[in-house]
Amino acid sequence: MNATDRLHVRYRVTGRDADEVAEAIRVEQTIEFPADLAAPWIQEEIVGRVEDRDTDSVVVSYAPGVLAGGLTQLLNVLWGNVSIFEGVRVVDVRLPDDDVLGLRGPRFGVAGMRELLAAPRRALLATALKPMGSSAAELAEVARTLAVAGLDIIKDDHSLGDQPWAPWRERVARCAEAVREANSRTGGRALYMPSLNVPAPEVQERAHEAKALGAGALLVLPGISGFDAMRALADDDELALPVMSHPSMLGSHIVSASQGIAHGLLLGLVNRLAGADLCVFPSHGGRFAFSPEQCAEIRDECAAPRGRLAPALPAPGGGMTVERLPELLDLYGRDVALLVGGALHRGDLATNAARMREAVESAA
Amino acid sequence: MNATDRLHVRYRVTGRDADEVAEAIRVEQTIEFPADLAAPWIQEEIVGRVEDRDTDSVVVSYAPGVLAGGLTQLLNVLWGNVSIFEGVRVVDVRLPDDDVLGLRGPRFGVAGMRELLAAPRRALLATALKPMGSSAAELAEVARTLAVAGLDIIKDDHSLGDQPWAPWRERVARCAEAVREANSRTGGRALYMPSLNVPAPEVQERAHEAKALGAGALLVLPGISGFDAMRALADDDELALPVMSHPSMLGSHIVSASQGIAHGLLLGLVNRLAGADLCVFPSHGGRFAFSPEQCAEIRDECAAPRGRLAPALPAPGGGMTVERLPELLDLYGRDVALLVGGALHRGDLATNAARMREAVESAA
Repeated sequence: MNATDRLHVRYRVTGRDADEVAEAIRVEQTIEFPADLAAPWIQEEIVGRVEDRDTDSVVVSYAPGVLAGGLTQLLNVLWGNVSIFEGVRVVDVRLPDDDVLGLRGPRFGVAGMRELLAAPRRALLATALKPMGSSAAELAEVARTLAVAGLDIIKDDHSLGDQPWAPWRERVARCAEAVREANSRTGGRALYMPSLNVPAPEVQERAHEAKALGAGALLVLPGISGFDAMRALADDDELALPVMSHPSMLGSHIVSASQGIAHGLLLGLVNRLAGADLCVFPSHGGRFAFSPEQCAEIRDECAAPRGRLAPALPAPGGGMTVERLPELLDLYGRDVALLVGGALHRGDLATNAARMREAVESAA
Repeated sequence: MNATDRLHVRYRVTGRDADEVAEAIRVEQTIEFPADLAAPWIQEEIVGRVEDRDTDSVVVSYAPGVLAGGLTQLLNVLWGNVSIFEGVRVVDVRLPDDDVLGLRGPRFGVAGMRELLAAPRRALLATALKPMGSSAAELAEVARTLAVAGLDIIKDDHSLGDQPWAPWRERVARCAEAVREANSRTGGRALYMPSLNVPAPEVQERAHEAKALGAGALLVLPGISGFDAMRALADDDELALPVMSHPSMLGSHIVSASQGIAHGLLLGLVNRLAGADLCVFPSHGGRFAFSPEQCAEIRDECAAPRGRLAPALPAPGGGMTVERLPELLDLYGRDVALLVGGALHRGDLATNAARMREAVESAA
């Protein structure tokens, strides 16, 4: 695919005729109209163009005007109605020029997160406050212990919403305070990251409230809140906080080999387009079935040169343990935020967290 | 499943051991924490409960407190991290009591839409303004013709965002004006429905602007904007406009037989929970591969008794033609909004639209 102002998408086609599918896609994603009835200039300039094909895949390109309207329309063109086709998977994307998209991407990216956390070389460390049912005071005590032990990012479990055991405001206030106190004791820069799994009209306002309460970063669930809600948080200059993307409800787009969007493109590229500085995904060998190759694909898409988009940090988690950190560092390298959650609670929490920090220090 | 304050979800399991998957799900969707390390009361009251199993499916129930936080957390419990499992599909849902959920559902529903459109008995008629590339004036002219001919709901094509050929504000203003003029000429009540495929922070504001410009209903893409953004529009008492849900990007959740959420549950039930009065889906025999059974499932879930949720109107489309209307009426009955778009432009638009109206009048 050549540099261009058009969006190029390679769709792999399974169990269907690739030429027929290409014809369907180029119309479906643009005019949704009998192509022969459209004015010639619309057929030429608006309908997608088939740029390439091989035995099992086709490349369709889309004009910049079709994409106008921001990230929501980019997603709509990339995967909107094609998501309802069977046997079609997005396996490669070439973005148009930055100016066509008008998307800033990650505010911090790898370099910005390293600077914020005063961690120029080592792998970064993330964890989650658990389990649901704990009170806000209990979660805050866990947060304090983890911050003192040297973990960088202490996030809410993504499922912590506004449950009665630890209501959102109380939880955010207490956990932010605990992490601030720990930092002032250790000289560290740990960030508390609350979950914004909240009603849509409140996302922006809660993010500002969280910042006012002392939160240092934000956790978003774009599969539920929408990628553009995350993009808006990342772009908010008054907030100016790092954003982590959690894959809740995104799995349907990736787990089928013959349908959806390639792991790296959704969890790496689309997350970066939507401003994520950190991209959570389930690493292989945990509670989910991602292969090492799929994880490497996400790692690579987090770092791939993509116009002005800063690289993001992959954040592999989903059942990781302290024992596996060396192996994870082998796979992901140092530009990673290693996410270990529940396993830290098996035995002594402070000791386990300190071992996590030692493991990445000694590797760096 | 019995009436209860718990959410019950039946997951069909393919290619894996159902008991193991049930154990994984009940923890994954709640505490995401080694179950044996959690306090006994958390294991008992917070972790999901396995309520039933047969050879290929399991029922897990969730406590009301786990669901607190609104629709975003309900979706997260229903399908959040399980979406990343392979071989698991949601095939049945029993909702907790209305008060647990706190969701109002469709504002208008079938009865409200019939009243609004002064159509007490016949099937309702919907269409889409196309093709992309047309100017706002051209789309308005099409809207006028269709309103005069007696179509009820004249929506933007869902892909109309803010493209240069018909920018959002100009398009909404002109199309709303054209439909208003047509109504004043015919005495009809046609509704113009703009697409809210717009940036996340602008959804609410654009909806109000659209209403001020004369729009009579709203089109939302919950697969891109998020279901809760649609819910917030439906719940907005100052707007008080009907809402139509479009399935763009939702396909990944439904097209696999062994993964995702059953067609009816996602496009019927979840849409109703999120306030949709009208639920668009691709009917069989069009450009997509839904079977008659899957379409019937959506039809039935739009109408099923679900606490205080009003029934919604199924809006089958995706390549329908005037010729197929009798067959569609046989399948869907009269409580339907039949959606015919591009096919109306083959031959004379006004004549085809008038035939659509005649077909449903004579059937009623």
